[in-house]
Amino acid sequence: MTETAGTAPSISAEQATVEAELTRNVLRSFEDCPDPRLKQVMQALVQNLHAFIRDVRLTEAEWNRAIDFLTAAGHITDDKRQEFILLSDVLGASMQTINVSNEAYKNATEATVFGPFFVDDAPQIPIGGDIAGDAAGQPCWVEGTVKDTDGNPVPGARIEVWEADEDGFYDVQYADSRVAGRAHLFADQDGNYSFWGLTPTPYPIPHDGPVGKMLEATGRSPMRASHLHFMVAAPGKRTLVTHIFVTGDNLLTCDTVFGVKQSLIKDFVEQPAGTPTPDGRGLDGQNWSRTRFDIVLAPEIP
Amino acid sequence: MTETAGTAPSISAEQATVEAELTRNVLRSFEDCPDPRLKQVMQALVQNLHAFIRDVRLTEAEWNRAIDFLTAAGHITDDKRQEFILLSDVLGASMQTINVSNEAYKNATEATVFGPFFVDDAPQIPIGGDIAGDAAGQPCWVEGTVKDTDGNPVPGARIEVWEADEDGFYDVQYADSRVAGRAHLFADQDGNYSFWGLTPTPYPIPHDGPVGKMLEATGRSPMRASHLHFMVAAPGKRTLVTHIFVTGDNLLTCDTVFGVKQSLIKDFVEQPAGTPTPDGRGLDGQNWSRTRFDIVLAPEIP
Repeated sequence: MTETAGTAPSISAEQATVEAELTRNVLRSFEDCPDPRLKQVMQALVQNLHAFIRDVRLTEAEWNRAIDFLTAAGHITDDKRQEFILLSDVLGASMQTINVSNEAYKNATEATVFGPFFVDDAPQIPIGGDIAGDAAGQPCWVEGTVKDTDGNPVPGARIEVWEADEDGFYDVQYADSRVAGRAHLFADQDGNYSFWGLTPTPYPIPHDGPVGKMLEATGRSPMRASHLHFMVAAPGKRTLVTHIFVTGDNLLTCDTVFGVKQSLIKDFVEQPAGTPTPDGRGLDGQNWSRTRFDIVLAPEIP
Repeated sequence: MTETAGTAPSISAEQATVEAELTRNVLRSFEDCPDPRLKQVMQALVQNLHAFIRDVRLTEAEWNRAIDFLTAAGHITDDKRQEFILLSDVLGASMQTINVSNEAYKNATEATVFGPFFVDDAPQIPIGGDIAGDAAGQPCWVEGTVKDTDGNPVPGARIEVWEADEDGFYDVQYADSRVAGRAHLFADQDGNYSFWGLTPTPYPIPHDGPVGKMLEATGRSPMRASHLHFMVAAPGKRTLVTHIFVTGDNLLTCDTVFGVKQSLIKDFVEQPAGTPTPDGRGLDGQNWSRTRFDIVLAPEIP
């Protein structure tokens, strides 16, 4: 496996000077930036962008392809489709930002990518309610607790959950304006929660655009490992954005957005049709599954 | 002056492992890319993109701003406006690609950025003809030779020239479909050429979009040093894309796209009204200027 980008072909000392001098000039152009953080970010961007161009000896034709790629990504992006987020996701940039921004804190639950399919104002359900709406799929009982890193319950924590249907689509990917496969609920006094969702299924990220073409050209799959999204918030706690994944899913090692973390893989235990449900719900002879996800929230960063 | 992006704040060894492991996974995802060059480019991109995120400890809010910036750049880009080229230009990425792709060859004329305003099929003019059309500005006589790196003339070399008018706009920036301030001509049997153009004037790059906002936020000027564009092509020769700049222009040291090279700065000598013109053209009592640009073409890369 190649861990580095390879060494740049040897160039003359004079050529190296010309290139280094240009990078210096660009860095210098940000010297008077009034916002120190913006200056730091822009200078680091320039440093790494120039290192990339010099390392690979980028050709003008390749540069043109990059401009065309970004243009196509911009043009396919609208209120419902965000190609730049997909690009960031498949390059691991989203996940690396999550890693950097959510450094491990004691035993707190790990974060993973937010993804492009969250919607504000999803319906509220009671504890034990059903998030599925009209979304098709195998029913799945999800239960757990919300606690702090000292093991105390976090009563009333707000839990947002969202997921794709059995065909691999989120509600917002359909042309109608359905709301399905998403809801929010609140943990009870003891930090307990439970709801009915759908057993997660694998699906491809939208791959009919430039990002899909790039994945195809590079021999990569557009598939995401099966997962169920969570966002959990409570006063004084760091908001947790994460998923849970499914033990045994063969996409766990090649999730196209690099979202899988070992601690987030959970057993979704298959229940034969007729197995009594936790809340007595009748399921018309369907198989169902159940899983447990105990959530630990880190304290808010001051 | 900061030459490096600064050192990342100290993070735990465990955290560093998590971050390095992710980068490794993303690099590995390109391992099966069937095109070795594409694999090299994508892996170098990932390496540098992740280094950037880790170096600056990019926050999720900053990542969101980057996504919004790219989205806005995509949406303002159309047939006549190319915000991604502007972005590449002001980050010095265009110029660095030029540097890398046009390594110095003996005494060949240096290249600089192409810019977004070239148009195919500009009118042909004879030697000594006028490129201005309806473009307003001070007349400028430009003359020189086209030779190879051994000093032999390159007869019939095709010379494309284009420039902004005295208001700082190229023809394509006007709402009408005028063609002005651009033409092509051919060097004569001895490699000589000459034409009437306009004395170059400084102008801002289009700065009413996201790139303009970035320049403003970082305390940078959108101004380009005054220049006249050339593209010179001949069989067996490396096509030269360059500009000439104006001695004494106070923007030479802060050209916003980093296009200036010392060897491309030329004297544009002011001629008082009434000074006889080289071709006897009458200029109705206007001042005019003259300059000389001797072009040396490198051999084509085999």
